[in-house]
Amino acid sequence: MRMSQALIPTLKESPAGAEIISHKLMIRAGLTRMLSSGLYSWLPLGYKVLRKVEDIVREEMDRAGGQEVLLPILSPQELWQQSGRWDLYGPELMRVRDRHDRIFGLGPTHEEVITDLARREIGSYRQLPIILYQIQTKFRDEIRPRFGVMRAREFRMKDAYSFDKDSEGLEKSYQKMYQAYCRIFTRCGLDCRAVEADTGPIGGEISHEFMVLSDSGEDEVIYCDGCGYAANINRAEYAKGRNQREEVRIQTKPLKKVKTPGMKTIEEVTTFLKCKPENLVKTLIYGIDGRPVVILIRGDHQINESRLADLLCARNLALADEDLIYKVTGAPLGFAGPVGLKGIEIIADSAVAEMSNFISGANQPDMHMLNINIDRDFKTDRVADIRRVIPRDRCPKCERELSFTRGIEVGHVFKLGTKYSQRLGATFSDSKGHRRPALMGCYGIGIDRLIAAIIEKHHDSEGIVWPLAVAPYQVSIIVVNSDDSRQADLGEKFYEQMVSEGIEVLLDDKPQRSGVKFKDADLIGLPIQVIVGTQSVKKGKVEIRLRESGQEFRVPPEDVLPKIKSLIQAAR
Amino acid sequence: MRMSQALIPTLKESPAGAEIISHKLMIRAGLTRMLSSGLYSWLPLGYKVLRKVEDIVREEMDRAGGQEVLLPILSPQELWQQSGRWDLYGPELMRVRDRHDRIFGLGPTHEEVITDLARREIGSYRQLPIILYQIQTKFRDEIRPRFGVMRAREFRMKDAYSFDKDSEGLEKSYQKMYQAYCRIFTRCGLDCRAVEADTGPIGGEISHEFMVLSDSGEDEVIYCDGCGYAANINRAEYAKGRNQREEVRIQTKPLKKVKTPGMKTIEEVTTFLKCKPENLVKTLIYGIDGRPVVILIRGDHQINESRLADLLCARNLALADEDLIYKVTGAPLGFAGPVGLKGIEIIADSAVAEMSNFISGANQPDMHMLNINIDRDFKTDRVADIRRVIPRDRCPKCERELSFTRGIEVGHVFKLGTKYSQRLGATFSDSKGHRRPALMGCYGIGIDRLIAAIIEKHHDSEGIVWPLAVAPYQVSIIVVNSDDSRQADLGEKFYEQMVSEGIEVLLDDKPQRSGVKFKDADLIGLPIQVIVGTQSVKKGKVEIRLRESGQEFRVPPEDVLPKIKSLIQAAR
Repeated sequence: MRMSQALIPTLKESPAGAEIISHKLMIRAGLTRMLSSGLYSWLPLGYKVLRKVEDIVREEMDRAGGQEVLLPILSPQELWQQSGRWDLYGPELMRVRDRHDRIFGLGPTHEEVITDLARREIGSYRQLPIILYQIQTKFRDEIRPRFGVMRAREFRMKDAYSFDKDSEGLEKSYQKMYQAYCRIFTRCGLDCRAVEADTGPIGGEISHEFMVLSDSGEDEVIYCDGCGYAANINRAEYAKGRNQREEVRIQTKPLKKVKTPGMKTIEEVTTFLKCKPENLVKTLIYGIDGRPVVILIRGDHQINESRLADLLCARNLALADEDLIYKVTGAPLGFAGPVGLKGIEIIADSAVAEMSNFISGANQPDMHMLNINIDRDFKTDRVADIRRVIPRDRCPKCERELSFTRGIEVGHVFKLGTKYSQRLGATFSDSKGHRRPALMGCYGIGIDRLIAAIIEKHHDSEGIVWPLAVAPYQVSIIVVNSDDSRQADLGEKFYEQMVSEGIEVLLDDKPQRSGVKFKDADLIGLPIQVIVGTQSVKKGKVEIRLRESGQEFRVPPEDVLPKIKSLIQAAR
Repeated sequence: MRMSQALIPTLKESPAGAEIISHKLMIRAGLTRMLSSGLYSWLPLGYKVLRKVEDIVREEMDRAGGQEVLLPILSPQELWQQSGRWDLYGPELMRVRDRHDRIFGLGPTHEEVITDLARREIGSYRQLPIILYQIQTKFRDEIRPRFGVMRAREFRMKDAYSFDKDSEGLEKSYQKMYQAYCRIFTRCGLDCRAVEADTGPIGGEISHEFMVLSDSGEDEVIYCDGCGYAANINRAEYAKGRNQREEVRIQTKPLKKVKTPGMKTIEEVTTFLKCKPENLVKTLIYGIDGRPVVILIRGDHQINESRLADLLCARNLALADEDLIYKVTGAPLGFAGPVGLKGIEIIADSAVAEMSNFISGANQPDMHMLNINIDRDFKTDRVADIRRVIPRDRCPKCERELSFTRGIEVGHVFKLGTKYSQRLGATFSDSKGHRRPALMGCYGIGIDRLIAAIIEKHHDSEGIVWPLAVAPYQVSIIVVNSDDSRQADLGEKFYEQMVSEGIEVLLDDKPQRSGVKFKDADLIGLPIQVIVGTQSVKKGKVEIRLRESGQEFRVPPEDVLPKIKSLIQAAR
């Protein structure tokens, strides 16, 4: 492609509001443009990357035995009602009414539609196993789209679905996809870590997220350097006992109310009462599927809502508003405590169960209670591990200290089991003629987000540094002075040579200053730069420069093509 | 691919409700399945065809200098309001409200979005010309989806947009796209005819539809064998005068009312009054942008609403309902006539203007009027060519008699001019620094419909007969008896050989009767069949059969691969 004819609108400055480097560079290098909040147009250069990434995904899905399909974006309400997700999915599912008043969702994921297809077309165990996948535009009406294509409302996604006759089969399909994901991310130049994760609105038994470790990631990842254990913060477990302070049973002291005027937060209370957060208990009121529940968490801990939801098999779970808090405790927000509450379930985190003489609210405005002790002062209905992992927690498998980092979720695989096949009736005849629901898995990769993650990991202060496999073009030819016809002709000659050899090349033939061209070449970040300047035409030395290492070669014009070929070969 | 592992659900019977052959065969061969009215899933075999066709389109768009982009499906209401199409588009445009109550259309076409991109990114004549295109899922809420993917509500479309600095440039871009379309359809095995067409809701000055001539086509095409003139029925013109009866001016007779009880249609009236349709005039009342207009058409002619709309620059045009007819004429439907109407515009077709002593309604229930004469009995406000072309009309260019046929519209190209660039302010600086709106063209190909058209033209009584370039696989290997391990092994060997040579091959290794396999192979319609049966293993003769011609070759096993290669080469 000749840059004089291409729509590659590079920018010197980062766009206002772009918070992370990939967002800034995608706009600056002219890969994408925002149309509306969370909606992006892929411009020619960006779309080339998108296609390359999609092709890598497609090749690896095919290699793993996947068969590609294309399912409609419009997803009939009735199917989602059968799966029970129509109401569950909430406002993230965009809904549209057709001219005949039938209602459709704009597919955020396709479990319902693929299960409907399976129930119609798969009748016998002989047709199993099967893996179907598509690469398709998806919709999620994010409440706060951000980070460019990283959290968009319309995006490209590869979603695959496996159907097996038994759980051994599902395990095999799951492993196939897991391995394919590892190959995909490696080919895209990414070092990924698979971590145990929540199943969320997709559901099922087991799931893993594939995380690209990066400071700009929105997810917190916990891992063990010893045994390789890794999990999303919501899913992470910790070894019990060893990391708790081995407390000597302290003599219980008498319960005592104290005034804490306007002191609502942990910080305010601890400062005022001159105590530590670990002497306090946070009394949280949750609305869980319509009923209020009291949760007790140590002052320095955070609740893990995902574990709590699992524990209670909850569909909807949210912190109570002030009205409900008042109704349950008789006090405003900030002064709830476990003593004296009646007719309400109380769940304590395991760490709270080991505390004595602790502080919590007194269920009166501006009052806290000291020296609270479980059993003596109130009863708990359940004790469970419902706090988040914290620094210095130990690995649940090998008890080494856990590490914390951040990650970008680029893929997610789920063992769904029979959740959808049972609800939608996707059954097959087994070898004895019995009807059984198929065991399903589902497997997603966010293509747009994957590209953003590649840029997060492959850039420097000047711009993007594309790995060869996903670079929009392999080579930049920069004609230093386009007004010099000898330079222009030589650049043109290299361009034609490379095009005829199937090398993907971008020729900067624009009539502008060389400084701008060099800046643009670094910003766009193609792996190999060929610089055609005075030296090239006067001394017969053409400069070839590698974008990543900065390594330079000077070769005579006739050696340019072979050199480029060998550099491409070496980078593969 | 091994059929034992593939999802290729072939059917013996045509599905209920499938009216045209392509629809029947796409379902029977397992290419697609209907999810809901007008919504189709592409199964693995069908999706392979879709990808091949999209790749042909992409290659030819790139060759013509197009640059591929991907624009969001969600299209902001504000842009459509700026172009004036938000209200104009009607219920075909599906609309969705997001969680923040912003409204979007599901893009049926992308003039607004691409013009918005151009106004932001194209500032100078130096950036022109430019052609941008995308291959994307589109939505049109058809009132009556039918013919399978031929008239669906969600479909794949290639839409391209050109931007030029002047009308010479636009003409060049238009010709480039026109030529690219010819190459695309030829490569897909289709003989297309470009015909002059209406611009419809897209608008602009000139447009051509690319028609695949076929009896199952929904469009009527008029063409001249002499000079090559061709047009859609709505657009077609005819030579004037020569094909009209050369009438001698007849003496006018006195106006006369007659009773025609319950006679409303042309047929009823002509039978009752013992006259010919060409002695009658249909008096039609239209609502045109809110006002009623009277249209006079000869009894044996049909109105061309498209021409009428052009004539009146009408945005909305529809036949009046009974209420409006009564209000205008004082009579029920079927008895309207031009005599005595007051305060309403009357437009007569040119053929009516040449009539004398004609019959029409009397504007009274159950009454017609005889011997009506223009000027003597009423005045027309305008006379114009507003009837449709009919058999025996002559070519407007060379006056040879026109031919009539039917066609499937697979592509449509438009010279938009400055319609969108002016409304949305997509201007550029010309070489003198003046701001001018870009001249635009737009160019669409319906991918799904193109595939249906290929099947309409390439099938026989047994099934599909794929042209090699778009066949989902090139070769079928049919193992006649899968229980015979020698046959199975030989089939497997050919399969492995071909796969390793990059030949696309489908191996029928299913444990079923050979009759079913042969039927399936013909139904699926891959170009080359390799039949591995008793002859192959006993006599060392393998049968190779061409699906289209039925031609057969018998070759020793070691010659199978070279023979297949040469057949593929020959078919290219």
